[in-house]
Amino acid sequence: MSAVLYHFAFDPGSRAARLALGEAKLPFEETPVRPWEDDCPIAGLNPSGMPPVLQVAETGRPLTLCEPAAILGWLEDRSREPFLVPADPAERAETRRLTTWFDRRFTDEVDAVLLHERMEKPLLRLGPPEARALRAGREALRAHLGQFEGLLAERDWLAGRRLGQADIVAAAHLSVLDYFGEVAWANWPGLKTWYMKLKSRPCFRPLLADRFPGVQPSAWYTDLDF
Amino acid sequence: MSAVLYHFAFDPGSRAARLALGEAKLPFEETPVRPWEDDCPIAGLNPSGMPPVLQVAETGRPLTLCEPAAILGWLEDRSREPFLVPADPAERAETRRLTTWFDRRFTDEVDAVLLHERMEKPLLRLGPPEARALRAGREALRAHLGQFEGLLAERDWLAGRRLGQADIVAAAHLSVLDYFGEVAWANWPGLKTWYMKLKSRPCFRPLLADRFPGVQPSAWYTDLDF
Repeated sequence: MSAVLYHFAFDPGSRAARLALGEAKLPFEETPVRPWEDDCPIAGLNPSGMPPVLQVAETGRPLTLCEPAAILGWLEDRSREPFLVPADPAERAETRRLTTWFDRRFTDEVDAVLLHERMEKPLLRLGPPEARALRAGREALRAHLGQFEGLLAERDWLAGRRLGQADIVAAAHLSVLDYFGEVAWANWPGLKTWYMKLKSRPCFRPLLADRFPGVQPSAWYTDLDF
Repeated sequence: MSAVLYHFAFDPGSRAARLALGEAKLPFEETPVRPWEDDCPIAGLNPSGMPPVLQVAETGRPLTLCEPAAILGWLEDRSREPFLVPADPAERAETRRLTTWFDRRFTDEVDAVLLHERMEKPLLRLGPPEARALRAGREALRAHLGQFEGLLAERDWLAGRRLGQADIVAAAHLSVLDYFGEVAWANWPGLKTWYMKLKSRPCFRPLLADRFPGVQPSAWYTDLDF
């Protein structure tokens, strides 16, 4: 089997795909892309123009998997046992609720504000970050982190007793914010323990090697015992 | 088995749940909710505060399914055969790509503009619609409809050869816009045929009986042969 992942290292959706492929121990080639550039190869693969896209060729015809849902869904389909969506019906429901939460709420309230200011503005040369937007994004992030801390007070992993898709998707988003030093882990001890467990897994290693042009990672970004 | 759906009749996600439950021929009680009101019962069920939520009690412990992904996923899980996610891997990928498309792009570019102006403003007493926003939303809608028309030039259903989740989700969004007369079907003959096929299915009947306070549906909203 051959697999090529088109991804942008600091796109949370792309990171979710890399983490899930890593958890599946499925080897893949990488094609880093810059989706905001005119000649980005993603434009010819995914009508939304956005990474991640995974092209796979197994025994049958080649498959083009666009968006995290298609990539994670395909990994789930080809696994004999439940893989990132747990077998328990309540945990399956919670996994899907939390995936929607990150796709909509977290993306809209946190990423679209904080990652726009810290990441998109330098990439697209849109000028310096605005203090008011940073404050609003950080306040929204605190509210979200408080919710996750609450879940982890009663559970080992975000959706229940097993590591799964909710954790992968959450870690994908939080790891980008963590690179930019936006996650005050000391305030969220349950979440910090959860993140340390995830960060020590082999699937996480490639993400810790990512570097954003002109921005050093936070002092603890690569530290497994922060 | 007992099932209670908390839903708002003109919320596209709620409509996707009703259509999927209808296709599954699964009887359910309805609790209509108004999620913008302080005492909405959804607040105690779904942390996002949003419909749809389905509460089911089968043989085991009761399940609370929050968000369309959990409801449609649960229906898929309990079906012996592939139900709304087709068996073919390429059609599965396309189903998931299009579901993401509606959850993100269509919601952001069309619903958040046009349904805000036409539906949320009267509900929340936010004043009359703005002409500029209506123009922008209608232009975005045309671009999306053009994409769907392109897909249907080569396929029977949006994701391939079988009716599935992509069609249910698309029809959920388009049917709300159609109530407000925003879909110029005559310009999109392939899409119109597709919508007529969907609209004739028993699952669609309850949606055609919905009425929005103070707004009559478009002349063709309930017409199966428009």
